[in-house]
Amino acid sequence: MFQSKLFTKTKREAPKDEEAINAQLLIRAGFIDKTMAGVYTFLPLGFRVLKKIENIIREEMLSIGGQEILMPTLQPKANWEKTGRWNTMDDLYKIKDTSDKKFALGPTHEEIVSPLLKNFIFSYKDLPLYIFQIQNKFRDEKRVKSGLLRTREFLMKDLYSFHADEKDLDKYYEKAKAAYFEIFKRVGLGNFTLLTFASGGTFSKYSHEFQTVSETGEDKIYVCEKCKVAINKEIMGEPLDAARGKQNSCPECGNKKLKEEKSIEVGNIFKLKTRYSAPFDLKYRDEKGIEHKVIMGCYGIGLSRLMGTIVEVFHDQKGIIWPESVAPFKAHLINLMPSANHKSQIDKIYNSLQKSGVEVLCDDREYVSPGEKFSDADLIGLPYRLVISEKTGEKIEIKKRDSNEIKLVAEKELARLLTK
Amino acid sequence: MFQSKLFTKTKREAPKDEEAINAQLLIRAGFIDKTMAGVYTFLPLGFRVLKKIENIIREEMLSIGGQEILMPTLQPKANWEKTGRWNTMDDLYKIKDTSDKKFALGPTHEEIVSPLLKNFIFSYKDLPLYIFQIQNKFRDEKRVKSGLLRTREFLMKDLYSFHADEKDLDKYYEKAKAAYFEIFKRVGLGNFTLLTFASGGTFSKYSHEFQTVSETGEDKIYVCEKCKVAINKEIMGEPLDAARGKQNSCPECGNKKLKEEKSIEVGNIFKLKTRYSAPFDLKYRDEKGIEHKVIMGCYGIGLSRLMGTIVEVFHDQKGIIWPESVAPFKAHLINLMPSANHKSQIDKIYNSLQKSGVEVLCDDREYVSPGEKFSDADLIGLPYRLVISEKTGEKIEIKKRDSNEIKLVAEKELARLLTK
Repeated sequence: MFQSKLFTKTKREAPKDEEAINAQLLIRAGFIDKTMAGVYTFLPLGFRVLKKIENIIREEMLSIGGQEILMPTLQPKANWEKTGRWNTMDDLYKIKDTSDKKFALGPTHEEIVSPLLKNFIFSYKDLPLYIFQIQNKFRDEKRVKSGLLRTREFLMKDLYSFHADEKDLDKYYEKAKAAYFEIFKRVGLGNFTLLTFASGGTFSKYSHEFQTVSETGEDKIYVCEKCKVAINKEIMGEPLDAARGKQNSCPECGNKKLKEEKSIEVGNIFKLKTRYSAPFDLKYRDEKGIEHKVIMGCYGIGLSRLMGTIVEVFHDQKGIIWPESVAPFKAHLINLMPSANHKSQIDKIYNSLQKSGVEVLCDDREYVSPGEKFSDADLIGLPYRLVISEKTGEKIEIKKRDSNEIKLVAEKELARLLTK
Repeated sequence: MFQSKLFTKTKREAPKDEEAINAQLLIRAGFIDKTMAGVYTFLPLGFRVLKKIENIIREEMLSIGGQEILMPTLQPKANWEKTGRWNTMDDLYKIKDTSDKKFALGPTHEEIVSPLLKNFIFSYKDLPLYIFQIQNKFRDEKRVKSGLLRTREFLMKDLYSFHADEKDLDKYYEKAKAAYFEIFKRVGLGNFTLLTFASGGTFSKYSHEFQTVSETGEDKIYVCEKCKVAINKEIMGEPLDAARGKQNSCPECGNKKLKEEKSIEVGNIFKLKTRYSAPFDLKYRDEKGIEHKVIMGCYGIGLSRLMGTIVEVFHDQKGIIWPESVAPFKAHLINLMPSANHKSQIDKIYNSLQKSGVEVLCDDREYVSPGEKFSDADLIGLPYRLVISEKTGEKIEIKKRDSNEIKLVAEKELARLLTK
């Protein structure tokens, strides 16, 4: 894409009411726009990042047998009363239509997917089943000071699994866990993200969160360096239940030397068991014709929150440093030549890279100083900066965003370098 | 995909409260599920159709210079008060959060995109600009008896264009019109869809709708067979304004012999001019530094409505007849052999077709009679039915959904036939 055509522009100043680094950088660089507190618009660059994250998550969900559907935002009040959550969920948006019917704006979809599956699950032969969607969610958040990390409207992937028994759920739960690690690895957060033990509610001893270590995180975790797992502060030192006493050590090895870290919750997985199949009477018949409640699991990742987390982890004073897998473009091709003269040279390089499958943002803007182009490139944060100037002659200057090393390479070498 | 893995099942009976053919067939065939009146879930088959439609629309929008973004559903009341629509739009969903702030659930996005562009449009050099999104919309509809044709929550593509003057808007408006015709042609509705003159409101003589002729349509249009255009009944015989008198003939050729038809509105385009730039003070400076209001256009297509329309136009007594471009799979491969014996033969054909890029739904279900498999295939409506049975031997029986002609072809011919 040519930057002269891109309608967004970078900004020198961060908006005053944005405290979070992710929002400051993403707004200044033109990835998002704040529509109101806790609600953002994704601009072309931000939309491209979202789509990259979406594709990675979709691939991993398909690889563990997920079937993709799309459930609605408007959800009938009756379903939420059935599970008791109409009155207990604080951040549920409720809406009344002109005929006085009430709906919830979906913050999650157990109340939709469970009755939906009553149409399709009858026998043990229909199980197991894995269903996911990538869809907008709504939560009436009180505090929204964290940019994309906590918003009133957000894009989420939610997967629901349906099983004949807990053993089968346990097996799939481990598979989902592995897929989640793969997702965090692929978006660049692998080294910073830990499986974290959290409260399991009334049904399980623990649920699991995926927490990304970050100084700006709202959560606190205690890391066991031996096992590379963590415990959420929420359950630390608190009685898990009357029988089991307090949690004060690593649940895997018993290690009590734990390191406190701040972190961002980037995903969670939960053994729901019969929490939602019971109220909706979701059952199956086994080989002998005996009815049983279906056993469920759920698995969530917020896409927009993941995008914010990536920026919190990967940035410096100058701007964002996108991991290649989610960068809106791989390379930023910057033309410092007097405009008309070298249009053909830059076009040739642009076209040859595009042909090789390298996504390029070409800064072809006129009347913009080299200094401004460089600082925009640092702010936007594409993995590779390519420069053509009077000094570079027939060659192209290449520099990685996260390094200071500058190399001059020939045009024919460039594509090879960027596609290896 | 293997049908034994697909979690949806076909139904013999249409739900009693669904009057519309599109909803009856789509629910029976397992494309959608009714969550409540006017709100549907897209199941795996329906989700695939949506994605095909989405990709066609996206390609055409990109081809006329559209930049894709994603705007939010939650929209501040203040923006809707500024345009006066908070109180005048009957079907606007309004919501109040716990701190008593009020929002609209977006039924359209002029109230978001116009103030957004104030951040990016300053000079004539920033124009023209074309911005689109594919996103969920909400309308508090009173009557919802038409399946996907009229819903309370629906997927829509909305494009907004921004110009320095009306002449430039007029030029782009014609380009957008052409892109719309291309979209309707590509999804299979080209021969049934007419440019239709409709009310232009206070700003233009006409707006334009795209109406698809269908016996089950809610709209009435008058078709000029000479010009292949139509006039919406809404403006027929009514005074357009005091000066111009009544509309009773083709606006293109003056022909008064018009044919009445029922139709479905599948798209609309509208010259907004300064209707939304004025309240949001969206201006630019010309070469001389003089300020002018930005001139706008908007262009909408409902994706879910388009899916419903396709089913209204393309079906028979037995089920849906998908056009190839939007079919969830191109071919339905049906195994009528005793199960275990011929697993390898069917797998070989399935794999070779997939390798050739032909998307296949393979009916590998056991304990399902040939009659049921055939009637399911007709109901689901994929373009090609491929059968392997004791009778077909080494060959494969091929039949198009919209024809009765059955041919036997060799395996190696099959891929060639389906990819030509």
